[in-house]
Amino acid sequence: MNKGLLIVLSGPSGVGKGTVCAALRRRTTDLIYSVSATTRAPRAGEQEGVNYFFKSREQFQDMIARDALLEYAEYVGNYYGTPREFVEKTLAEGKDVILEIEVQGALKVKEKFPEGVFIFLLPPSMAELKQRIVGRGTESQDKIDRRLSVAVDEMNLLSKYDYAVVNDEIDRACDRILAIITAEHCKKERFLHELLGELKSLTTAQNGAER
Amino acid sequence: MNKGLLIVLSGPSGVGKGTVCAALRRRTTDLIYSVSATTRAPRAGEQEGVNYFFKSREQFQDMIARDALLEYAEYVGNYYGTPREFVEKTLAEGKDVILEIEVQGALKVKEKFPEGVFIFLLPPSMAELKQRIVGRGTESQDKIDRRLSVAVDEMNLLSKYDYAVVNDEIDRACDRILAIITAEHCKKERFLHELLGELKSLTTAQNGAER
Repeated sequence: MNKGLLIVLSGPSGVGKGTVCAALRRRTTDLIYSVSATTRAPRAGEQEGVNYFFKSREQFQDMIARDALLEYAEYVGNYYGTPREFVEKTLAEGKDVILEIEVQGALKVKEKFPEGVFIFLLPPSMAELKQRIVGRGTESQDKIDRRLSVAVDEMNLLSKYDYAVVNDEIDRACDRILAIITAEHCKKERFLHELLGELKSLTTAQNGAER
Repeated sequence: MNKGLLIVLSGPSGVGKGTVCAALRRRTTDLIYSVSATTRAPRAGEQEGVNYFFKSREQFQDMIARDALLEYAEYVGNYYGTPREFVEKTLAEGKDVILEIEVQGALKVKEKFPEGVFIFLLPPSMAELKQRIVGRGTESQDKIDRRLSVAVDEMNLLSKYDYAVVNDEIDRACDRILAIITAEHCKKERFLHELLGELKSLTTAQNGAER
């Protein structure tokens, strides 16, 4: 049995990673969502263990010390990280895992899982991205300015990813991500091993028939 | 504007390349079908200029001499080839082209278009492939034996391709091929150039705002 695929969905702050990831979870049960740990405060409606595992800084630092995180990063003053064991166990069971994380964390995952599928969510335009960051309305002007500046730096990291998906409409973005996952399951590497056995048996049968 | 994608659909004799390609053409008008030239006799129902351009050996050899073919190969006693100009012109217009060709021809195309998307159509099993070749019922036992032997050799060439698609059901095979094409349009390389310009303009605006 082939291992599952590690799908890493990332992109600049404000591009809509969380919304697209939530829509994907509604569309399919074949993608196992990796819940991140974070020290940031929950936003309205966010639930412990569903959107994030919410941790104190002390708890998070203890997880780092125990090497219990696949990656972690400090971002705009908060820690974000990915509990390691769940991801590795699920992939070994042949199930696909999706990680929704910010850009720096994704690149750390790439160091440990170069075979992962790295998808960069793009805004329809940079003007649209700016609008989304400003329009969120949950943060001070200082924080907004910092987020904009960070977003430009993050966009420059597209080159490290495998795919780019424009988040023009959520459903269309989901269609493209699901197509990427289907395509990745069709990569020839996933067939070579199994096929060698079948070919050997046919060649033997064929030679027998010729005698 | 990005160039179109060259999609090369290949696979062993008898796997159902023609049937799948015909189904794809019914499913979408976004794929431009490259009609091959061949010296083999038309089968029942095949139309000139739709399924193939049927040529005499003399006509075909003249096309070779004029370098009017993107690739050609002799296969079970007949020539098959791909007229070059139509493919190159269509790709330059930003449209995707699909080539349905046998395995050796596909690998020659790969020499000239390494950026093409090479899809290998697989039978559900080798036993099923044998059944399809025998069951076609249009050829002598000698030809069937030759086809079986060639098919085994062809299967060994999967490693040269990008993707493998199992032809278990025609609709599912088409779904996977269309997903591969969508995914290939999402490859980050297709976004990098355009994005650099947008980033530059936002960075300028951002620096202006900070002053």
